[in-house]
Amino acid sequence: MKKAIVLLSGGMDSAVTLYIARKMGYKTHCLIFDYGQRHKKEVGFAKQLARIADSEYSVLNIRLPWGKSALLDKRTKVPENRRSSGIPVTYVPARNTIFISFALSFAEAIEAKRIFIGANARDFSGYPDCRPLYFKSFNRLLKKATKAEGISIEAPLLHKTKREIVAIGRRLGVPFELTWSCYKGGKEPCGRCDACRLRARGFR
Amino acid sequence: MKKAIVLLSGGMDSAVTLYIARKMGYKTHCLIFDYGQRHKKEVGFAKQLARIADSEYSVLNIRLPWGKSALLDKRTKVPENRRSSGIPVTYVPARNTIFISFALSFAEAIEAKRIFIGANARDFSGYPDCRPLYFKSFNRLLKKATKAEGISIEAPLLHKTKREIVAIGRRLGVPFELTWSCYKGGKEPCGRCDACRLRARGFR
Repeated sequence: MKKAIVLLSGGMDSAVTLYIARKMGYKTHCLIFDYGQRHKKEVGFAKQLARIADSEYSVLNIRLPWGKSALLDKRTKVPENRRSSGIPVTYVPARNTIFISFALSFAEAIEAKRIFIGANARDFSGYPDCRPLYFKSFNRLLKKATKAEGISIEAPLLHKTKREIVAIGRRLGVPFELTWSCYKGGKEPCGRCDACRLRARGFR
Repeated sequence: MKKAIVLLSGGMDSAVTLYIARKMGYKTHCLIFDYGQRHKKEVGFAKQLARIADSEYSVLNIRLPWGKSALLDKRTKVPENRRSSGIPVTYVPARNTIFISFALSFAEAIEAKRIFIGANARDFSGYPDCRPLYFKSFNRLLKKATKAEGISIEAPLLHKTKREIVAIGRRLGVPFELTWSCYKGGKEPCGRCDACRLRARGFR
């Protein structure tokens, strides 16, 4: 059975991506990161999602002590009802590059050929490491980066709207009630951060 | 003063690279990895080197639980007096990709524009993530990967022989006696692993 690594955050996009990979016939190994995020709560959701989807998973602990993101430094406020364009303070420098690098190492070690990521460049916060050119360029790098050949990144939701993502997830039976989006990671979703608002857009 | 991140292992190549970066006028921030390597001993050497070179440094702890390298899994023997060509079992899947990703995040956070790495593609073990095309491709990715612009990787020793590296180091005053190369990380260098033999070639 062909294997794939799935980067699983516990949010709705990566959950749908996991179900897409399963539907495509991959034996999935989820990689979940505890990276000191404010909404560490998502890690528990990710683990539960992996179990429900009958997927293997590993949780990796990493730290980015230099901070520089509202998701890493609690003194910086998470923006609410943001209207400005531009990259918000919730951006974590090089986060996807780090996550994909670990996934690449894992893929090579277990002879998986695909790395699935739930990145989206339609209804998103403008993060540079979610753009189509970023993934295109990363896939070029992957051709030179490892001993194994033929490993590549798949971002099946890259060009979908949130609404389409919800529709795909519903078709595949994704348990959206068991996903977590809110950046604040409180008891209940705040409803006002980018993550909450993009999520709400999908369900409206 | 312009800033640079230096990936410092504690070996001779990264030590020379640190001194090159200093000579070029950079304020250096060394990134040292404790990644579960067999020769963890090098971490202590790296810290000492950073201090002697009057550079700031951070040590990051990461784990690659999937192993698949003689440097991560003590049940796999480190090859001695290796004659075959081909990539040896000391290769760690995607190690440089992971290290550079963290360096990229650090660079963006502190507004550094250069990431120095001591990679060498002349007297080396054939690791794919030490080849010139790998770095060329990674530099292309960097243009798309972050909010900050103009971050790039410098590998000043890429095309040098070990002998040339020793000569450059001597000119710059690198304390080679305070570097550690041996993959086995024992009390004394084994003299037979790739790292010991390449080192010896430089000094002969």
